[in-house]
Amino acid sequence: MIFAAILAGGVGNRMGEVDKPKQFLTLGDKPILIQTVEKFYLNHRIDEVIVLCHKYWINHTKDLIDEYIPNADNVTVVEGGELRNDTIMNAVSYIEGKYDLSEDDIIITHDSVRPFVTHRIIMENIKKTEEVGACDTVIPATDTIVVSEDKDKISNIPNRDFMYQGQTPQTFKILKLKECFNNLSDEEKSTLSDAAKIFVLNGEEVAIVRGEVFNIKITYPYDLKVANTIIDDAKLNISDAETGEYKVNLYDFDDK
Amino acid sequence: MIFAAILAGGVGNRMGEVDKPKQFLTLGDKPILIQTVEKFYLNHRIDEVIVLCHKYWINHTKDLIDEYIPNADNVTVVEGGELRNDTIMNAVSYIEGKYDLSEDDIIITHDSVRPFVTHRIIMENIKKTEEVGACDTVIPATDTIVVSEDKDKISNIPNRDFMYQGQTPQTFKILKLKECFNNLSDEEKSTLSDAAKIFVLNGEEVAIVRGEVFNIKITYPYDLKVANTIIDDAKLNISDAETGEYKVNLYDFDDK
Repeated sequence: MIFAAILAGGVGNRMGEVDKPKQFLTLGDKPILIQTVEKFYLNHRIDEVIVLCHKYWINHTKDLIDEYIPNADNVTVVEGGELRNDTIMNAVSYIEGKYDLSEDDIIITHDSVRPFVTHRIIMENIKKTEEVGACDTVIPATDTIVVSEDKDKISNIPNRDFMYQGQTPQTFKILKLKECFNNLSDEEKSTLSDAAKIFVLNGEEVAIVRGEVFNIKITYPYDLKVANTIIDDAKLNISDAETGEYKVNLYDFDDK
Repeated sequence: MIFAAILAGGVGNRMGEVDKPKQFLTLGDKPILIQTVEKFYLNHRIDEVIVLCHKYWINHTKDLIDEYIPNADNVTVVEGGELRNDTIMNAVSYIEGKYDLSEDDIIITHDSVRPFVTHRIIMENIKKTEEVGACDTVIPATDTIVVSEDKDKISNIPNRDFMYQGQTPQTFKILKLKECFNNLSDEEKSTLSDAAKIFVLNGEEVAIVRGEVFNIKITYPYDLKVANTIIDDAKLNISDAETGEYKVNLYDFDDK
């Protein structure tokens, strides 16, 4: 079986004066969260979509799903944890409570505020995880990456050819993820901000899947402006979500 | 003395079907290159601005400067080199041919397609280079950085707290830069894509200066759309360029 865990735990403190978390803000004609959930809900390989959010926002999230995706009997709202990886483990616990898992079952974890994930990215995540056991979605680093360990001087400028920027989805065989997570020390569990690193710290292979420049994470109001530009370009409709790619035009434009 | 070298060597092949390099495209009411040159031309600490471009575009660049910055007697157009660092060394050669340099003289190198550099960033570049001898403008990495040496599997996910994305300006004491560059092997010279790394490879200190999220490099048409959004927000005028910051509003927005 294949599950999608949509991580909507944010309470939106980076969004300034806004009175609700960013995943509930409107993008195009519906909330960002709904745009994201639809990508997984509409994918025929995915058995159940689990939306993880802060306990204060569970009822609001359920209401939105009822309004925008009525009769979605395979979308469930579950309480998230304090940290990103706690939230993912809450999804694992929910799944284990409902199904008998085998070692081939897969969880696709994805940021609720990355609504531009494509069908191609999701399908490649599933394929790579079936083959390797874990995968991460990345794009080649667009900037030179600079390392500074003291926030004052440069420690190193690594070869840019090897550097990537992480996006999501991050996809894992569920039982392997649980085993690797349980192998971590309490300190590792409390400081780890990335799920793929759970595998890396265990010496397990993680494949990389090519993301998209436009698969952005909406964190700041500025990002929402960019996102609305992407939406305007994409002329989104259901068939896009079904067949794969957005019609975002990154390579041609009018020079007025 | 303090010089600005504006790196405009691009011939624009990443811009698709456009018939001219991206630095000549219009942003707001004038070419991107002019927006960038103005930031340095208007800075009272800078003695001369050297614009480095491909030989095919020298006349066009001169014409633009005459049109938009008439009587700019301290803006000079010089032919660039094949690689980024060759271009910078061409600027150094030009400066050496015209002035007697002392070890305190400074070159500020900057991408012609980063028009949103601020007065604050330029002044901090000058100050840090006076103190340390070299500096680089960076922002904390917004994404998790992933290292893959084989383009297939993850090699490492370094601690994000130490990771930064490089921007420009990159600023150096000129004679030290020349000395460090001449110490490199031919292979290092031919593969190096970053000027700050000339210092790093020589074991010399490079300070970091805080950039800005909106100090973007306009590489793809998508970036130009974002840039126009920034321009719309910023309500640019000369006093902004004189006093420092753009009025780009990253933290508040209307949720309609």
